Amino acid sequence: MSSHVEQNLVEGNKAYAAAFTQGHLALPPSQKYAVLTCMDARIDPAAAFNIPLGAAHVIRNAGASARDAFRSLVISQQLLGTTEVLLVKHTGCGMLTFDNDTARGLVKKNKGEAAAKEVENIDFITFSELEEQVKDDVAWLKSKAVEEGVGVTGWIYEVETGQVRKVV
Amino acid sequence: MSSHVEQNLVEGNKAYAAAFTQGHLALPPSQKYAVLTCMDARIDPAAAFNIPLGAAHVIRNAGASARDAFRSLVISQQLLGTTEVLLVKHTGCGMLTFDNDTARGLVKKNKGEAAAKEVENIDFITFSELEEQVKDDVAWLKSKAVEEGVGVTGWIYEVETGQVRKVV
Repeated sequence: MSSHVEQNLVEGNKAYAAAFTQGHLALPPSQKYAVLTCMDARIDPAAAFNIPLGAAHVIRNAGASARDAFRSLVISQQLLGTTEVLLVKHTGCGMLTFDNDTARGLVKKNKGEAAAKEVENIDFITFSELEEQVKDDVAWLKSKAVEEGVGVTGWIYEVETGQVRKVV
Repeated sequence: MSSHVEQNLVEGNKAYAAAFTQGHLALPPSQKYAVLTCMDARIDPAAAFNIPLGAAHVIRNAGASARDAFRSLVISQQLLGTTEVLLVKHTGCGMLTFDNDTARGLVKKNKGEAAAKEVENIDFITFSELEEQVKDDVAWLKSKAVEEGVGVTGWIYEVETGQVRKVV
Protein backbone atom coordinates (compact mmCIF):
# COMPACT_ATOMS: atom_id res chain seq x y z
CA MET A 1 0.00 0.00 0.00
CA SER A 2 1.24 3.49 -0.81
CA SER A 3 1.89 5.87 2.02
CA HIS A 4 0.21 9.25 2.28
CA VAL A 5 3.45 10.83 1.07
CA GLU A 6 3.51 8.63 -2.03
CA GLN A 7 -0.15 9.36 -2.79
CA ASN A 8 0.52 13.07 -2.47
CA LEU A 9 3.39 12.77 -4.97
CA VAL A 10 1.36 10.76 -7.48
CA GLU A 11 -1.73 12.98 -7.30
CA GLY A 12 0.21 16.24 -7.46
CA ASN A 13 2.38 14.99 -10.30
CA LYS A 14 -0.70 14.14 -12.39
CA ALA A 15 -1.71 17.78 -12.40
CA TYR A 16 1.88 18.92 -13.03
CA ALA A 17 2.37 16.57 -15.99
CA ALA A 18 -1.04 17.46 -17.46
CA ALA A 19 0.05 21.12 -17.69
CA PHE A 20 3.69 20.36 -18.60
CA THR A 21 4.99 22.03 -21.77
CA GLN A 22 8.79 21.98 -21.30
CA GLY A 23 9.80 18.55 -22.54
CA HIS A 24 12.18 20.10 -25.06
CA LEU A 25 14.73 21.50 -22.57
CA ALA A 26 18.39 20.54 -23.06
CA LEU A 27 20.55 18.71 -20.50
CA PRO A 28 23.17 21.46 -19.91
CA PRO A 29 21.73 24.36 -17.87
CA SER A 30 20.67 27.09 -20.30
CA GLN A 31 21.96 29.91 -18.07
CA LYS A 32 25.17 28.09 -17.12
CA TYR A 33 24.94 28.47 -13.36
CA ALA A 34 24.61 26.30 -10.30
CA VAL A 35 22.89 27.08 -7.01
CA LEU A 36 24.18 25.26 -3.95
CA THR A 37 21.79 25.48 -1.01
CA CYS A 38 20.55 23.56 2.02
CA MET A 39 18.13 20.61 2.02
CA ASP A 40 16.02 22.54 4.57
CA ALA A 41 12.30 21.98 4.02
CA ARG A 42 11.57 25.70 4.21
CA ILE A 43 13.51 26.58 1.04
CA ASP A 44 11.92 26.41 -2.43
CA PRO A 45 14.89 27.45 -4.61
CA ALA A 46 13.03 27.70 -7.93
CA ALA A 47 10.47 30.09 -6.44
CA ALA A 48 12.59 31.99 -3.89
CA PHE A 49 15.64 32.41 -6.12
CA ASN A 50 13.70 32.82 -9.38
CA ILE A 51 15.28 29.91 -11.27
CA PRO A 52 13.53 29.17 -14.56
CA LEU A 53 13.15 25.48 -15.41
CA GLY A 54 16.23 24.30 -17.30
CA ALA A 55 18.37 27.31 -16.33
CA ALA A 56 20.58 26.08 -13.46
CA HIS A 57 21.78 23.05 -11.56
CA VAL A 58 20.42 22.97 -8.01
CA ILE A 59 22.59 21.09 -5.51
CA ARG A 60 21.25 20.61 -1.98
CA ASN A 61 22.66 18.99 1.15
CA ALA A 62 22.56 19.51 4.90
CA GLY A 63 23.88 23.02 5.53
CA ALA A 64 24.70 23.84 1.88
CA SER A 65 28.16 22.41 2.50
CA ALA A 66 30.61 23.22 -0.29
CA ARG A 67 32.87 20.30 0.60
CA ASP A 68 29.99 17.81 0.55
CA ALA A 69 28.96 19.12 -2.89
CA PHE A 70 32.41 18.71 -4.45
CA ARG A 71 31.61 15.86 -6.85
CA SER A 72 28.46 17.58 -8.15
CA LEU A 73 30.27 20.90 -8.58
CA VAL A 74 33.04 19.26 -10.60
CA ILE A 75 30.50 17.60 -12.90
CA SER A 76 28.50 20.81 -13.23
CA GLN A 77 31.52 22.86 -14.30
CA GLN A 78 33.79 20.46 -16.06
CA LEU A 79 31.23 18.39 -17.95
CA LEU A 80 28.12 20.55 -18.20
CA GLY A 81 29.37 24.08 -18.78
CA THR A 82 28.59 25.91 -15.52
CA THR A 83 30.50 29.20 -15.22
CA GLU A 84 28.92 30.67 -12.08
CA VAL A 85 28.15 29.24 -8.64
CA LEU A 86 25.77 30.82 -6.12
CA LEU A 87 26.11 29.46 -2.58
CA VAL A 88 23.03 30.14 -0.43
CA LYS A 89 22.99 29.28 3.28
CA HIS A 90 20.09 30.30 5.51
CA THR A 91 18.96 31.51 8.89
CA GLY A 92 17.73 28.90 11.35
CA CYS A 93 19.87 26.16 9.80
CA GLY A 94 20.02 22.86 11.68
CA MET A 95 23.80 22.81 11.15
CA LEU A 96 24.01 25.88 13.42
CA THR A 97 22.37 24.07 16.31
CA PHE A 98 25.01 21.47 17.13
CA ASP A 99 28.63 20.40 16.67
CA ASN A 100 29.88 16.88 15.98
CA ASP A 101 29.88 15.92 19.65
CA THR A 102 26.40 17.20 20.41
CA ALA A 103 25.10 15.64 17.16
CA ARG A 104 26.50 12.26 18.19
CA GLY A 105 25.01 12.72 21.64
CA LEU A 106 21.62 13.48 20.13
CA VAL A 107 21.77 10.41 17.90
CA LYS A 108 22.56 8.29 20.93
CA LYS A 109 19.72 9.83 22.94
CA ASN A 110 17.17 9.61 20.08
CA LYS A 111 18.19 6.37 18.43
CA GLY A 112 20.33 4.38 20.84
CA GLU A 113 23.82 2.92 21.02
CA ALA A 114 23.79 1.10 17.66
CA ALA A 115 22.87 4.26 15.75
CA ALA A 116 25.46 6.26 17.68
CA LYS A 117 28.12 3.70 16.74
CA GLU A 118 27.25 4.13 13.04
CA VAL A 119 27.77 7.88 13.07
CA GLU A 120 30.89 8.04 15.21
CA ASN A 121 33.11 8.66 12.17
CA ILE A 122 30.80 11.02 10.28
CA ASP A 123 31.79 14.66 10.02
CA PHE A 124 28.42 16.42 10.21
CA ILE A 125 30.08 19.60 8.85
CA THR A 126 28.33 21.86 11.31
CA PHE A 127 29.10 25.54 11.81
CA SER A 128 28.61 28.11 14.52
CA GLU A 129 28.37 31.47 12.74
CA LEU A 130 26.31 31.84 9.57
CA GLU A 131 27.85 34.79 7.80
CA GLU A 132 31.41 33.63 8.53
CA GLN A 133 30.61 30.19 7.19
CA VAL A 134 29.25 31.64 3.94
CA LYS A 135 32.56 33.46 3.53
CA ASP A 136 34.59 30.37 4.46
CA ASP A 137 32.71 28.15 2.00
CA VAL A 138 33.09 30.71 -0.80
CA ALA A 139 36.83 30.92 -0.09
CA TRP A 140 37.09 27.12 -0.10
CA LEU A 141 35.18 26.92 -3.38
CA LYS A 142 37.45 29.48 -4.97
CA SER A 143 40.60 27.69 -3.85
CA LYS A 144 39.55 24.06 -4.27
CA ALA A 145 36.45 23.55 -6.33
CA VAL A 146 36.07 26.07 -9.11
CA GLU A 147 38.29 26.85 -12.03
CA GLU A 148 39.80 30.17 -13.05
CA GLY A 149 37.07 32.39 -14.47
CA VAL A 150 34.16 30.70 -12.68
CA GLY A 151 32.33 33.24 -10.52
CA VAL A 152 31.37 32.38 -6.94
CA THR A 153 29.13 34.46 -4.69
CA GLY A 154 27.74 33.78 -1.21
CA TRP A 155 24.23 34.60 0.02
CA ILE A 156 21.95 34.22 3.05
CA TYR A 157 18.28 33.34 2.74
CA GLU A 158 16.03 34.30 5.65
CA VAL A 159 13.44 31.61 6.32
CA GLU A 160 11.53 34.13 8.45
CA THR A 161 11.01 36.69 5.67
CA GLY A 162 11.69 34.95 2.36
CA GLN A 163 14.42 37.50 1.64
CA VAL A 164 17.86 36.73 0.26
CA ARG A 165 20.90 38.99 0.66
CA LYS A 166 24.39 38.87 -0.72
CA VAL A 167 27.26 38.36 1.74
CA VAL A 168 30.27 38.05 -0.52
CA MET B 1 29.18 44.65 -10.62
CA SER B 2 26.50 41.96 -10.31
CA SER B 3 26.15 39.41 -13.06
CA HIS B 4 22.90 38.87 -14.94
CA VAL B 5 22.35 35.74 -12.86
CA GLU B 6 22.72 37.70 -9.61
CA GLN B 7 20.36 40.43 -10.82
CA ASN B 8 17.80 37.79 -11.76
CA LEU B 9 18.02 36.32 -8.24
CA VAL B 10 17.70 39.69 -6.51
CA GLU B 11 14.80 40.91 -8.65
CA GLY B 12 12.88 37.64 -8.50
CA ASN B 13 13.42 37.33 -4.77
CA LYS B 14 11.94 40.79 -4.16
CA ALA B 15 8.63 39.62 -5.56
CA TYR B 16 8.83 36.31 -3.69
CA ALA B 17 9.55 37.97 -0.35
CA ALA B 18 6.83 40.59 -0.88
CA ALA B 19 4.23 37.82 -1.14
CA PHE B 20 5.84 35.55 1.50
CA THR B 21 3.57 34.43 4.35
CA GLN B 22 5.31 31.30 5.69
CA GLY B 23 7.87 32.67 8.11
CA HIS B 24 6.41 30.60 10.92
CA LEU B 25 7.42 27.14 9.61
CA ALA B 26 9.40 24.86 11.94
CA LEU B 27 12.89 23.45 11.24
CA PRO B 28 11.97 19.72 11.20
CA PRO B 29 10.02 18.78 8.04
CA SER B 30 6.31 18.79 8.91
CA GLN B 31 5.56 15.65 6.87
CA LYS B 32 8.70 13.81 8.01
CA TYR B 33 10.03 12.80 4.59
CA ALA B 34 13.05 13.44 2.41
CA VAL B 35 13.23 13.53 -1.38
CA LEU B 36 16.59 12.67 -2.92
CA THR B 37 16.82 13.69 -6.56
CA CYS B 38 19.25 14.93 -9.21
CA MET B 39 20.67 18.45 -9.53
CA ASP B 40 19.47 18.42 -13.16
CA ALA B 41 18.21 21.85 -14.26
CA ARG B 42 15.03 20.37 -15.71
CA ILE B 43 13.67 19.20 -12.36
CA ASP B 44 11.59 21.45 -10.09
CA PRO B 45 10.92 19.10 -7.16
CA ALA B 46 8.48 21.32 -5.26
CA ALA B 47 6.25 21.68 -8.32
CA ALA B 48 6.73 18.30 -10.01
CA PHE B 49 6.55 16.22 -6.83
CA ASN B 50 3.99 18.38 -5.04
CA ILE B 51 6.06 19.20 -1.97
CA PRO B 52 4.47 21.87 0.24
CA LEU B 53 6.89 24.39 1.74
CA GLY B 54 8.17 23.06 5.06
CA ALA B 55 7.05 19.47 4.43
CA ALA B 56 10.20 17.61 3.32
CA HIS B 57 13.96 17.77 3.06
CA VAL B 58 15.10 17.97 -0.57
CA ILE B 59 18.59 16.59 -1.22
CA ARG B 60 20.06 17.00 -4.70
CA ASN B 61 23.33 15.93 -6.28
CA ALA B 62 24.59 14.75 -9.67
CA GLY B 63 22.59 11.64 -10.54
CA ALA B 64 20.60 11.49 -7.27
CA SER B 65 23.36 9.33 -5.84
CA ALA B 66 22.40 7.67 -2.57
CA ARG B 67 26.03 7.20 -1.52
CA ASP B 68 26.86 10.86 -2.14
CA ALA B 69 23.84 11.88 -0.03
CA PHE B 70 24.82 9.74 2.96
CA ARG B 71 25.68 12.56 5.39
CA SER B 72 22.49 14.48 4.62
CA LEU B 73 20.33 11.36 4.93
CA VAL B 74 21.81 10.56 8.35
CA ILE B 75 21.11 14.09 9.57
CA SER B 76 17.59 14.05 8.11
CA GLN B 77 16.65 10.81 9.85
CA GLN B 78 18.66 10.76 13.01
CA LEU B 79 18.46 14.42 13.99
CA LEU B 80 15.40 15.81 12.24
CA GLY B 81 12.81 13.05 12.36
CA THR B 82 12.51 11.83 8.76
CA THR B 83 10.77 8.45 8.52
CA GLU B 84 10.38 8.09 4.74
CA VAL B 85 12.81 8.58 1.84
CA LEU B 86 11.78 8.97 -1.81
CA LEU B 87 14.61 8.51 -4.30
CA VAL B 88 13.84 10.03 -7.72
CA LYS B 89 16.20 9.55 -10.66
CA HIS B 90 15.26 10.75 -14.13
CA THR B 91 15.40 10.11 -17.87
CA GLY B 92 18.14 11.86 -19.83
CA CYS B 93 20.45 12.03 -16.81
CA GLY B 94 24.01 13.20 -17.48
CA MET B 95 25.28 10.34 -15.30
CA LEU B 96 23.93 7.92 -17.93
CA THR B 97 26.05 9.46 -20.67
CA PHE B 98 29.56 8.53 -19.49
CA ASP B 99 31.60 6.32 -17.17
CA ASN B 100 34.60 7.40 -15.08
CA ASP B 101 37.06 6.96 -17.96
CA THR B 102 35.02 8.88 -20.52
CA ALA B 103 34.29 11.59 -17.92
CA ARG B 104 38.01 12.02 -17.30
CA GLY B 105 38.62 12.06 -21.04
CA LEU B 106 35.98 14.76 -21.47
CA VAL B 107 37.49 16.87 -18.70
CA LYS B 108 40.89 16.58 -20.37
CA LYS B 109 39.46 17.50 -23.77
CA ASN B 110 37.35 20.42 -22.45
CA LYS B 111 39.59 21.77 -19.72
CA GLY B 112 43.11 20.50 -20.27
CA GLU B 113 45.72 18.44 -18.46
CA ALA B 114 45.65 20.33 -15.13
CA ALA B 115 41.89 19.86 -14.75
CA ALA B 116 42.16 16.21 -15.76
CA LYS B 117 44.80 15.69 -13.07
CA GLU B 118 42.46 17.15 -10.44
CA VAL B 119 39.67 14.70 -11.20
CA GLU B 120 41.71 11.54 -11.64
CA ASN B 121 40.71 10.24 -8.22
CA ILE B 122 37.06 11.31 -8.27
CA ASP B 123 34.41 8.65 -8.56
CA PHE B 124 31.77 10.35 -10.70
CA ILE B 125 29.26 7.64 -9.64
CA THR B 126 27.88 7.18 -13.13
CA PHE B 127 25.45 4.43 -14.16
CA SER B 128 24.42 2.73 -17.37
CA GLU B 129 20.84 1.59 -16.83
CA LEU B 130 18.32 3.87 -15.18
CA GLU B 131 15.74 1.50 -13.73
CA GLU B 132 18.39 -0.91 -12.45
CA GLN B 133 20.22 1.95 -10.76
CA VAL B 134 17.05 3.10 -8.99
CA LYS B 135 16.69 -0.42 -7.61
CA ASP B 136 20.38 -0.63 -6.67
CA ASP B 137 20.30 2.72 -4.86
CA VAL B 138 17.14 1.77 -2.97
CA ALA B 139 18.75 -1.53 -1.93
CA TRP B 140 21.87 0.33 -0.82
CA LEU B 141 19.80 2.83 1.17
CA LYS B 142 17.91 0.04 2.89
CA SER B 143 21.08 -1.80 3.83
CA LYS B 144 23.39 1.11 4.67
CA ALA B 145 21.64 4.41 5.14
CA VAL B 146 18.23 4.08 6.67
CA GLU B 147 17.14 2.64 9.95
CA GLU B 148 14.61 -0.06 10.65
CA GLY B 149 11.13 1.29 10.04
CA VAL B 150 12.15 4.07 7.62
CA GLY B 151 10.37 3.59 4.29
CA VAL B 152 12.34 3.87 1.03
CA THR B 153 10.81 3.95 -2.44
CA GLY B 154 12.41 4.50 -5.86
CA TRP B 155 10.94 6.54 -8.73
CA ILE B 156 11.74 7.78 -12.23
CA TYR B 157 10.87 11.28 -13.42
CA GLU B 158 10.56 11.79 -17.17
CA VAL B 159 12.01 15.15 -18.20
CA GLU B 160 10.22 14.77 -21.55
CA THR B 161 6.69 14.52 -20.09
CA GLY B 162 6.84 15.79 -16.51
CA GLN B 163 5.54 12.42 -15.33
CA VAL B 164 6.86 10.44 -12.39
CA ARG B 165 6.42 6.68 -11.93
CA LYS B 166 7.26 4.31 -9.12
CA VAL B 167 9.90 1.66 -9.77
CA VAL B 168 10.27 0.00 -6.41
